[in-house]
Amino acid sequence: MRSKKETESITLLGQKDVKYNYGYSPEILETFENKHPNRDYWVKFNCPEFTSLCPITGQPDFATIYISYIPDRIMVESKSLKLYLVSFRNHGDFHEDVVNIIMDDLINLMQPRYIEIWGKFLPRGGISIDPYVNYGRPASKYEEIAQQRFIQHDMNGMDKIDNR
Amino acid sequence: MRSKKETESITLLGQKDVKYNYGYSPEILETFENKHPNRDYWVKFNCPEFTSLCPITGQPDFATIYISYIPDRIMVESKSLKLYLVSFRNHGDFHEDVVNIIMDDLINLMQPRYIEIWGKFLPRGGISIDPYVNYGRPASKYEEIAQQRFIQHDMNGMDKIDNR
Amino acid sequence: MRSKKETESITLLGQKDVKYNYGYSPEILETFENKHPNRDYWVKFNCPEFTSLCPITGQPDFATIYISYIPDRIMVESKSLKLYLVSFRNHGDFHEDVVNIIMDDLINLMQPRYIEIWGKFLPRGGISIDPYVNYGRPASKYEEIAQQRFIQHDMNGMDKIDNR
Amino acid sequence: MRSKKETESITLLGQKDVKYNYGYSPEILETFENKHPNRDYWVKFNCPEFTSLCPITGQPDFATIYISYIPDRIMVESKSLKLYLVSFRNHGDFHEDVVNIIMDDLINLMQPRYIEIWGKFLPRGGISIDPYVNYGRPASKYEEIAQQRFIQHDMNGMDKIDNR
Amino acid sequence: MRSKKETESITLLGQKDVKYNYGYSPEILETFENKHPNRDYWVKFNCPEFTSLCPITGQPDFATIYISYIPDRIMVESKSLKLYLVSFRNHGDFHEDVVNIIMDDLINLMQPRYIEIWGKFLPRGGISIDPYVNYGRPASKYEEIAQQRFIQHDMNGMDKIDNR
Amino acid sequence: MRSKKETESITLLGQKDVKYNYGYSPEILETFENKHPNRDYWVKFNCPEFTSLCPITGQPDFATIYISYIPDRIMVESKSLKLYLVSFRNHGDFHEDVVNIIMDDLINLMQPRYIEIWGKFLPRGGISIDPYVNYGRPASKYEEIAQQRFIQHDMNGMDKIDNR
Amino acid sequence: MRSKKETESITLLGQKDVKYNYGYSPEILETFENKHPNRDYWVKFNCPEFTSLCPITGQPDFATIYISYIPDRIMVESKSLKLYLVSFRNHGDFHEDVVNIIMDDLINLMQPRYIEIWGKFLPRGGISIDPYVNYGRPASKYEEIAQQRFIQHDMNGMDKIDNR
Amino acid sequence: MRSKKETESITLLGQKDVKYNYGYSPEILETFENKHPNRDYWVKFNCPEFTSLCPITGQPDFATIYISYIPDRIMVESKSLKLYLVSFRNHGDFHEDVVNIIMDDLINLMQPRYIEIWGKFLPRGGISIDPYVNYGRPASKYEEIAQQRFIQHDMNGMDKIDNR
Amino acid sequence: MRSKKETESITLLGQKDVKYNYGYSPEILETFENKHPNRDYWVKFNCPEFTSLCPITGQPDFATIYISYIPDRIMVESKSLKLYLVSFRNHGDFHEDVVNIIMDDLINLMQPRYIEIWGKFLPRGGISIDPYVNYGRPASKYEEIAQQRFIQHDMNGMDKIDNR
Amino acid sequence: MRSKKETESITLLGQKDVKYNYGYSPEILETFENKHPNRDYWVKFNCPEFTSLCPITGQPDFATIYISYIPDRIMVESKSLKLYLVSFRNHGDFHEDVVNIIMDDLINLMQPRYIEIWGKFLPRGGISIDPYVNYGRPASKYEEIAQQRFIQHDMNGMDKIDNR
Ligand SMILES: [Ca+2]
Ligand SMILES: [Ca+2]
Ligand SMILES: [Ca+2]
Ligand SMILES: [Ca+2]
Ligand SMILES: [Ca+2]
Ligand SMILES: [Ca+2]
Ligand SMILES: [Ca+2]
Ligand SMILES: [Ca+2]
Ligand SMILES: [Ca+2]
Ligand SMILES: [Ca+2]
Ligand SMILES: [Ca+2]
Ligand SMILES: [Ca+2]
Ligand SMILES: [Ca+2]
Ligand SMILES: [Ca+2]
Ligand SMILES: [Ca+2]
Ligand SMILES: [Ca+2]
Repeated sequence: MRSKKETESITLLGQKDVKYNYGYSPEILETFENKHPNRDYWVKFNCPEFTSLCPITGQPDFATIYISYIPDRIMVESKSLKLYLVSFRNHGDFHEDVVNIIMDDLINLMQPRYIEIWGKFLPRGGISIDPYVNYGRPASKYEEIAQQRFIQHDMNGMDKIDNR
Repeated sequence: MRSKKETESITLLGQKDVKYNYGYSPEILETFENKHPNRDYWVKFNCPEFTSLCPITGQPDFATIYISYIPDRIMVESKSLKLYLVSFRNHGDFHEDVVNIIMDDLINLMQPRYIEIWGKFLPRGGISIDPYVNYGRPASKYEEIAQQRFIQHDMNGMDKIDNR
Repeated sequence: MRSKKETESITLLGQKDVKYNYGYSPEILETFENKHPNRDYWVKFNCPEFTSLCPITGQPDFATIYISYIPDRIMVESKSLKLYLVSFRNHGDFHEDVVNIIMDDLINLMQPRYIEIWGKFLPRGGISIDPYVNYGRPASKYEEIAQQRFIQHDMNGMDKIDNR
Repeated sequence: MRSKKETESITLLGQKDVKYNYGYSPEILETFENKHPNRDYWVKFNCPEFTSLCPITGQPDFATIYISYIPDRIMVESKSLKLYLVSFRNHGDFHEDVVNIIMDDLINLMQPRYIEIWGKFLPRGGISIDPYVNYGRPASKYEEIAQQRFIQHDMNGMDKIDNR
Repeated sequence: MRSKKETESITLLGQKDVKYNYGYSPEILETFENKHPNRDYWVKFNCPEFTSLCPITGQPDFATIYISYIPDRIMVESKSLKLYLVSFRNHGDFHEDVVNIIMDDLINLMQPRYIEIWGKFLPRGGISIDPYVNYGRPASKYEEIAQQRFIQHDMNGMDKIDNR
Repeated sequence: MRSKKETESITLLGQKDVKYNYGYSPEILETFENKHPNRDYWVKFNCPEFTSLCPITGQPDFATIYISYIPDRIMVESKSLKLYLVSFRNHGDFHEDVVNIIMDDLINLMQPRYIEIWGKFLPRGGISIDPYVNYGRPASKYEEIAQQRFIQHDMNGMDKIDNR
Repeated sequence: MRSKKETESITLLGQKDVKYNYGYSPEILETFENKHPNRDYWVKFNCPEFTSLCPITGQPDFATIYISYIPDRIMVESKSLKLYLVSFRNHGDFHEDVVNIIMDDLINLMQPRYIEIWGKFLPRGGISIDPYVNYGRPASKYEEIAQQRFIQHDMNGMDKIDNR
Repeated sequence: MRSKKETESITLLGQKDVKYNYGYSPEILETFENKHPNRDYWVKFNCPEFTSLCPITGQPDFATIYISYIPDRIMVESKSLKLYLVSFRNHGDFHEDVVNIIMDDLINLMQPRYIEIWGKFLPRGGISIDPYVNYGRPASKYEEIAQQRFIQHDMNGMDKIDNR
Repeated sequence: MRSKKETESITLLGQKDVKYNYGYSPEILETFENKHPNRDYWVKFNCPEFTSLCPITGQPDFATIYISYIPDRIMVESKSLKLYLVSFRNHGDFHEDVVNIIMDDLINLMQPRYIEIWGKFLPRGGISIDPYVNYGRPASKYEEIAQQRFIQHDMNGMDKIDNR
Repeated sequence: MRSKKETESITLLGQKDVKYNYGYSPEILETFENKHPNRDYWVKFNCPEFTSLCPITGQPDFATIYISYIPDRIMVESKSLKLYLVSFRNHGDFHEDVVNIIMDDLINLMQPRYIEIWGKFLPRGGISIDPYVNYGRPASKYEEIAQQRFIQHDMNGMDKIDNR
């Protein structure tokens, strides 16, 4: 269990009057303390409800975003993560940039040991785009982990895509 | 076959008046002797019926828990493992903590050579969380196994998640 | 092929400076002439990119909308249908109402012989909601078609839902 | 959109201090007004997070419950439906009875034109049980609808079950 | 809930020293009282663990057996059903006969309003055999139900079989 | 069980020196007695290992053949059915003819109450062909069954084909 | 088998110097004689390789076309059907028109007893369009078959579409 | 092809009066000569029809057993392998022991260069158990192969288990 | 967001009078600037709508093309990529050559750090062909990445192909 | 494109009077020149239509054969590969031998840099056999590639087999 003190930093979870921002709001991200900092472990978020706008045409884009990371001392709270992702709703960016931005914001928030983001977008003009980026703390073993995972990205069990 | 002596430690399997605890009860775990201790082999438990409570809101959570381990001299009996997992029913913990707790309890019970736990939880707020943790006996080859498996966790054949 | 005259009513398809409305805009729907009005035939639209807002909490909702209809003399143009569905983006309505509204707007636009709408929404609180509504021109055989299809809705080959 | 007056009956949706009952509580169900009462339409709830207890052994049971109905003047609010289903958590009943009870409670709440409940439970002793029950308002066309749907239940596209 | 009196007829569920018969034992079937006899409802058993012997060669056969029925006043208890199906383990019969026998035994036990059995067997010589039989109480509406369901058996959503 | 007398007509099952004919041999079909002739029931054969030759080019063709029938007094033995299907191996016929021939041979053999054959062939020139034919005993209720099943053939749950 | 005389009308199958037309060429269709004209049976063509052009933008479209028919005295030869479908390659038409045209050309060619065409197109602007049309010989039982199949089109086992 | 001499050791394949043992009989295993001993290659057996008994309760267990090996000079004949696996039918052992026993028996029979066994069992008490064991000839490169494969066991493309 | 200057090189996206070339046109490819050049990240294009001609027979071929690359300073714009792939429509090349040509053109366009192309073609004569090629900048770490990915290509989670 | 000279060695593709051999005919294999010999790339053939005979019983066997290779200067032409595989139709060999023979014939034909063959056969006696063999040019880096791929064969994303 977690004591009241441990959950002080969590304000959004359980709240009633949560306001949804539809414009890019990284400041809405919240954290809580990692209770197992002496161990490495993985946390993965599956986020199928991601939507943003195309910066050129203004047409909505849709994606499933997969976020995996190895926490250090603080962890991102998932309710705030949801609100943060919702804040892309009326925001325009290319797919490749969206994925980079999300990773940069989460590195900035949590200083994780490792993090990777994989976005799987719906097709435009018959072609879908799936960017992937990752990061490991510089000059640490996590940087090597990042390199190894990067090299082997999507090598097996690739998605079968037929646009239906 | 196993002799009566070998099955002495097993009290729950086959019992009629099994009592189910819905509050966290690690003491209910039982073990039996590994008949092949001179060999390394894997045992995996697939547990789709896991449910606990959210510590903040009290809302029930649901997950499939996958436990894989390499036994040393004693092994966890699966009937008792079921009762132990049921004992989370009215217990509140974040997903990340649940997975760590289960692993710590099983390390404490069995002192396995290696163990890993992967939880796949149902979504809240459109986002689902899948924590993963593992352990290899310190200063042994199993510790290296743990590191290698940790580095390569979930690299291929990722789940396709659309919340339906 | 279609002559230039036949495609006069189509202004959005192929246009560059298409403006996307994110507020409910049924006026944006366009039609073209049915070249086979002496025959009954089906047209089905699969629309997985639907999103709107929950009227109470303001949280975004997501759905795949399936629209099947039997056209009469005019048919809805699919580019305008896309823009129309996009116009729900910042609009709040319960799922049940969304499905009814879309059907009413398309009846109003096209006066089809028959039409049905099936929405499959993503879960909230672990429960997903799938409304279905249909319509057949009153006092015609299409009204009986509507009744028969309504009675037998979703009787077989039901979706298997596990929220992952 | 719905006016404030129209949403008066909804107290739980958006609330912060929602209390979860784990003992059977049909009184927690809430309704709101059907905005399209002059039309028949379907609403379906997919509820994969259902769990209750076996009345004999006390062992937890798990199911996905599918509820489809044709509303009359009032409709069940889905947040309250979630809480109602959660209230089976520590309640014991055979699968066949659970499905009947849920239907009776919803008939009692809403007086729908038609309703059906299909429960798909996880296996016990290698066998899983899937009860189905339905109801149509007596002496109305909905009663005939109920009979027709009952006769043709599960005739095609049956689940393939292998317990894995 | 069910009172003690109501569960008197159930002896096997929860018992410790259950003995498994591997020779055909219809006498092991048990029943309990239907608490909703004034209503028609469906109960379906999915039984993927069925195995018996080929009467000519003695080779084991394997199948998934699907049993659907509409109970009358008494219902088959599922623990006893499991034991009954296990009692085919060392019993030899052609697939077609197995399915007929099971139905006859359950009619004999429960006098249901309606019952159907569908067996899906594993291939022998590259060919698999799937028998189906059903029954509705003679001179009742259930007899007509049986005829209608029989006529439409397996018309849609047929299994795709490739023996892998 | 079946007595020795009842299995007299079965010569191929269990035999060692079975000879395989690769040229069309309907005479190899065998039957056994239906032990439940007073009841209608279904028997379905799934036969994924069918191969024959194209009569024009000599190229091999491949199919899964699905045979469903309602037996009368005699039933086709499956070992002999396998040998019969193997006898198409070096035989040339269009897909449409193969399916008709198989049905005619089985009608000739068994005089079933009803029978249908559905062949699903692999593609040639990017197009695959799936013929279906059925039969019900003339001037009996089975003839009407045949008509009804014929009219509704393949209406739902159609195969999704992409040639991969 | 078929005699040389019977295959006289088939010129394309087996030919070497087949020329592919990429402009609409219904004249390329060929037929052969139905050897079972006294019986009704189904023939279905699965054609996943269909491509044509959008008449407005010139962008290529892609579809899987499903053609089911009940032949009368002559049948369409599949090699010529392939060439005919290829002849849409550089031809522009809306999806709805393509499906109607194909049906009209095949009615014109074969005068079948019944025929239906279902096209499943890839998405444009996030929306995919699936037209369906059918035909039964006027003033015959096939006309009623057409009506019944038309009314029940796509009622169950609907495609799940997510554009990936 | 294989000469008569090469197939001398094979007695069961093609035999008529094969007797099935339902009690553990490793002596029934047969071998034949490896025709490509100068090369390493893999042979994999997929065995979905495995069943044995639980040693404590006597309840039948079911599994799919996957056996992969690199043969040395002799190879296990698959008909005898089937009979050997059938001989577990009335034999009681825990899942973990079954997998070890099978591997030991095959090592004893064939002295392969490498072998691994993976059993995937059906659930008991909501939990299924999947043991895996492997072996490489000591002090050879195959021992290193065994270690590498052991370390990386089941790292990707894990089964999704929901007990249905 | 991207400034107007940054999007200068993009002319096709959003344009109305886009002309489609059906003859091989590598000059149509466009680029834009990589906003994250100091980081390695992956971009993957899924292109299921690829079609070209067989150089010998002129028969159309179809494939899904998967393009993954690590960008350097410039990136290929996806609208232009679509047009480029469309320009193979009336162009003849063997599958193996197509995949090599696409890679060479993209290397020429972008000078990426790494790129790989995997084509999955539809079957001809019952056999489908899937070529794969990759490239890493010579004398850089990307060349080693290319070698490692090349060695491990398609080792796991292979497509299951049955031509249906 | 390829010049006439480059396609001289191809005689079968596009031919009309192709004769099919059903007896083992490796001489029928043809090659063409690799246009990209300075690069390593993969070519994979998926061949689901493979059939041969069991050498002991004469019963037909069926498999999907997967062939992956890295070409050197000459490449196998796929039409001839099809004819070669067809030439196993009336040829008897154990599964393990078939896979070795095919590889040896292709090495003999093409002298590839690397090649691997994986056969997935249909079950006999409830067990299916999947042999795998590979080869890398001796004393080259391809030999090491072969060893690495061999060691890691089928480690992840294993087929799920249930014989249906
Ligand atoms: Ca495709
Ligand atoms: Ca799901
Ligand atoms: Ca899903
Ligand atoms: Ca399953
Ligand atoms: Ca397939
Ligand atoms: Ca396709
Ligand atoms: Ca989606
Ligand atoms: Ca898809
Ligand atoms: Ca899809
Ligand atoms: Ca579940
Ligand atoms: Ca499952
Ligand atoms: Ca197949
Ligand atoms: Ca397919
Ligand atoms: Ca099974
Ligand atoms: Ca299967
Ligand atoms: Ca299968």
